[in-house]
Amino acid sequence: MQVDLNSDLGESFGRYTIGNDDKVIPLITSANVACGFHASDPVVMKATVEKAKAAGISCGAHPGYPDLMGFGRRNMVVTPEEAYSYTLYQIGALDAFLKAQGMTLQHVKPHGAFYNMAAKDRKQSEAICQAVKDYRSDLIVLALPAGELYKAAKDMGLRAAAEVFADRAYEEDGTLVNRKKPGAMITDEDEALRRVIRMVKEHKVTAITGKDIDITADSVCVHGDGAKALEFVEKLRAGLTKEGIDIKPLSEIV
Amino acid sequence: MQVDLNSDLGESFGRYTIGNDDKVIPLITSANVACGFHASDPVVMKATVEKAKAAGISCGAHPGYPDLMGFGRRNMVVTPEEAYSYTLYQIGALDAFLKAQGMTLQHVKPHGAFYNMAAKDRKQSEAICQAVKDYRSDLIVLALPAGELYKAAKDMGLRAAAEVFADRAYEEDGTLVNRKKPGAMITDEDEALRRVIRMVKEHKVTAITGKDIDITADSVCVHGDGAKALEFVEKLRAGLTKEGIDIKPLSEIV
Amino acid sequence: MQVDLNSDLGESFGRYTIGNDDKVIPLITSANVACGFHASDPVVMKATVEKAKAAGISCGAHPGYPDLMGFGRRNMVVTPEEAYSYTLYQIGALDAFLKAQGMTLQHVKPHGAFYNMAAKDRKQSEAICQAVKDYRSDLIVLALPAGELYKAAKDMGLRAAAEVFADRAYEEDGTLVNRKKPGAMITDEDEALRRVIRMVKEHKVTAITGKDIDITADSVCVHGDGAKALEFVEKLRAGLTKEGIDIKPLSEIV
Amino acid sequence: MQVDLNSDLGESFGRYTIGNDDKVIPLITSANVACGFHASDPVVMKATVEKAKAAGISCGAHPGYPDLMGFGRRNMVVTPEEAYSYTLYQIGALDAFLKAQGMTLQHVKPHGAFYNMAAKDRKQSEAICQAVKDYRSDLIVLALPAGELYKAAKDMGLRAAAEVFADRAYEEDGTLVNRKKPGAMITDEDEALRRVIRMVKEHKVTAITGKDIDITADSVCVHGDGAKALEFVEKLRAGLTKEGIDIKPLSEIV
Repeated sequence: MQVDLNSDLGESFGRYTIGNDDKVIPLITSANVACGFHASDPVVMKATVEKAKAAGISCGAHPGYPDLMGFGRRNMVVTPEEAYSYTLYQIGALDAFLKAQGMTLQHVKPHGAFYNMAAKDRKQSEAICQAVKDYRSDLIVLALPAGELYKAAKDMGLRAAAEVFADRAYEEDGTLVNRKKPGAMITDEDEALRRVIRMVKEHKVTAITGKDIDITADSVCVHGDGAKALEFVEKLRAGLTKEGIDIKPLSEIV
Repeated sequence: MQVDLNSDLGESFGRYTIGNDDKVIPLITSANVACGFHASDPVVMKATVEKAKAAGISCGAHPGYPDLMGFGRRNMVVTPEEAYSYTLYQIGALDAFLKAQGMTLQHVKPHGAFYNMAAKDRKQSEAICQAVKDYRSDLIVLALPAGELYKAAKDMGLRAAAEVFADRAYEEDGTLVNRKKPGAMITDEDEALRRVIRMVKEHKVTAITGKDIDITADSVCVHGDGAKALEFVEKLRAGLTKEGIDIKPLSEIV
Repeated sequence: MQVDLNSDLGESFGRYTIGNDDKVIPLITSANVACGFHASDPVVMKATVEKAKAAGISCGAHPGYPDLMGFGRRNMVVTPEEAYSYTLYQIGALDAFLKAQGMTLQHVKPHGAFYNMAAKDRKQSEAICQAVKDYRSDLIVLALPAGELYKAAKDMGLRAAAEVFADRAYEEDGTLVNRKKPGAMITDEDEALRRVIRMVKEHKVTAITGKDIDITADSVCVHGDGAKALEFVEKLRAGLTKEGIDIKPLSEIV
Repeated sequence: MQVDLNSDLGESFGRYTIGNDDKVIPLITSANVACGFHASDPVVMKATVEKAKAAGISCGAHPGYPDLMGFGRRNMVVTPEEAYSYTLYQIGALDAFLKAQGMTLQHVKPHGAFYNMAAKDRKQSEAICQAVKDYRSDLIVLALPAGELYKAAKDMGLRAAAEVFADRAYEEDGTLVNRKKPGAMITDEDEALRRVIRMVKEHKVTAITGKDIDITADSVCVHGDGAKALEFVEKLRAGLTKEGIDIKPLSEIV
């Protein structure tokens, strides 16, 4: 039994600082590193990769929409060719910093609105996966297991890793319950922990309807913004360890 | 006897088109491909690399200052760490498109104000060369032979290629005569051609003072903006060929 | 009987040139001047306003999404507060150049995807109109008469001007036929001219279904990209004049 | 006896927060509001102007270089026409938000590297002043009294306000001692306070050489980053008040 813990990292920009990278890094095994489109700049990327190396964690590219003002959280209607090119560009840019540190790019996880769009749109997901494949066919695509990106990656022969969320409720089809709906967020930390452990051990989770559904859990998405979020990650680590679940980077899991 | 012909390529952006890439490509052996900072975007980079591949020419990264509004032609005071990171980022971004096409990045040539600054500043040049070296130590740095970037590349054990200009006068120290000074531009095409041939065959050029100086000429920088510029490149190709000088990509020269 | 001819202007950026501003300006009465978000920069805006002044045409702000890479033609999901703030910012920026030339801002017409979104979304249209109203309550909003922006402007007590298209077919509800549908474009120039004249004189147009519908035509949108487009504008001017229709700026019409 | 206290405000961007606007606003009389080039975006500008209005403080435009990545702190070589156009654009953009709140733009103070460049370059200063004058000839230019911008403003008939720094040493010519030189910073708070009071009351300050020089002090530049900075502003306010010096916005002083 094993699972990866991933978190978004390196989202500062110029003189602007965001996130708690220094505190999150020791708690995770895989970092989704911003690539300069929705956040970050080359100097921040250099520093982020150096920190990840020092801590011995693995790095993935976290490509987003070209929308710094909106932090990549606003949907933009792009063509599949644009989705392909934006993904390829950002993967290459990040990988240059990894190479300079003698590190190997582990995975690709789209950011924010790009992630949500990909989960729903097969054609765009195929464009993103094609960029991943054209760059390095053994890269891992980290995605929602019920979403189109995960399926496209599998169908195209890529290594796909299934991401689960401790604090989100699921619909019966495995998609996330819309944040606006009541019950969308799992606010009780003990319940969140129990759900994660069950997803990893039994490959099951109880959907918002009450029905148990199958789910694959290769990686848990965790957050570092705020003291409470950090405490939960520590609790999660302790809980997983107590259950005999190894916390390992994605590359050792999929 | 051999020489490379290089030209800046892929400088369009979004709906904006600039340059005559389709007409220049058949005339050159090495393309300096814009990487999205001073010009270009991921979709343009994809198209540019595909065209270069179809024509069988070699590609280099053409990193610039992050100044799209000024087309990278305005000097910006950046730190060596910024110069390093901007170079590494842009190299990686372009190389991703080359990898996707099964091509190999041949060289790096800074753009515009970044090129001019590097020619004069040893510390910045070392930062740029370190980025090149950290990315792939067999990459070629294309630079003014009398400038600091060329010297830094040599001193740091990198392959350095010497770039010459057909239409520019030289000072006795091998630097370019400032465009504002009278006589800075070689406007007579026949004279320009004779000068290039002599630089390649005899490694000599007559400085603006009248004195002959030594010069290395691995590559001639040519331009594709305007019918007249394109005609001169054709004339240059014919002239070089007539003299028995092979026109080859940089990777076969240095 | 009178009508305004409007065209998008000043969409160049830095070293990138687009459009035929010099050729379009003598043919129109109102210019929609790009404001630096989807296109243009401060230097281009200065030059555009100076040209408009020299030609004696009126200027409006042409605010777009903050998406230079997509030329403001890609839909972005923004909040009404963002739509308000983006509109207000761009109006003020353009008006500064008009003030410097002793000119008065005449109208506001959203650009591209921002225009299309506003035509369909009442809440966003109200945000845009609120920005217009908060800036100067006598500004004219130029919009599709069947769209939400036009209606919101009217309802909020603003001066609204109805824009019609010579080369587009209409649905029975007065909206434009989707470009992907057959018959969406009016390709016959004589037919296009007859339709415009009828819209101005009779306030009628034949919808794609064959049914006559009511339409208000305060301004015709014309294009300057390409020799053919320019020729049509000349033909349109001649045709309108022959029918005794005065071609005047919006401020003299609504 | 009277003086203004000014501080840079509204420098957040998108999801990035910077500065302590809420804590600084009650302590100052004039805000230099970022305009979207070196920092800020339209939504931040709206919020900043609303806060300033609620607190009853005056607002000025704080135009910077188009360099968000460098926070406008890196020198960029622009032409006077670019300096003119960048200034005019940013003034107009900010003023739109002020108009929407029924407020009047009080002053213009260039930001960071743009401020430093203007202090040394007469031609650029004239371009900036021309933009101010073309926009509204009664606007105040806030600048270093020994610098070229202040002098150009005076010579061009604009209202110029002299800015002094509590924590900086002066050369005998009234320019600031370079930060890299020993003694450039006044680190003792009591000394800083005494110096400010003397500048306001006696129009004198002791230069780094020990010689007393004349200085005009219409406004003191204060900072809100960090608890220590805020405490000093409170101390400064108390000290000024104790000396019978009124703290008033610029518009009531020059």
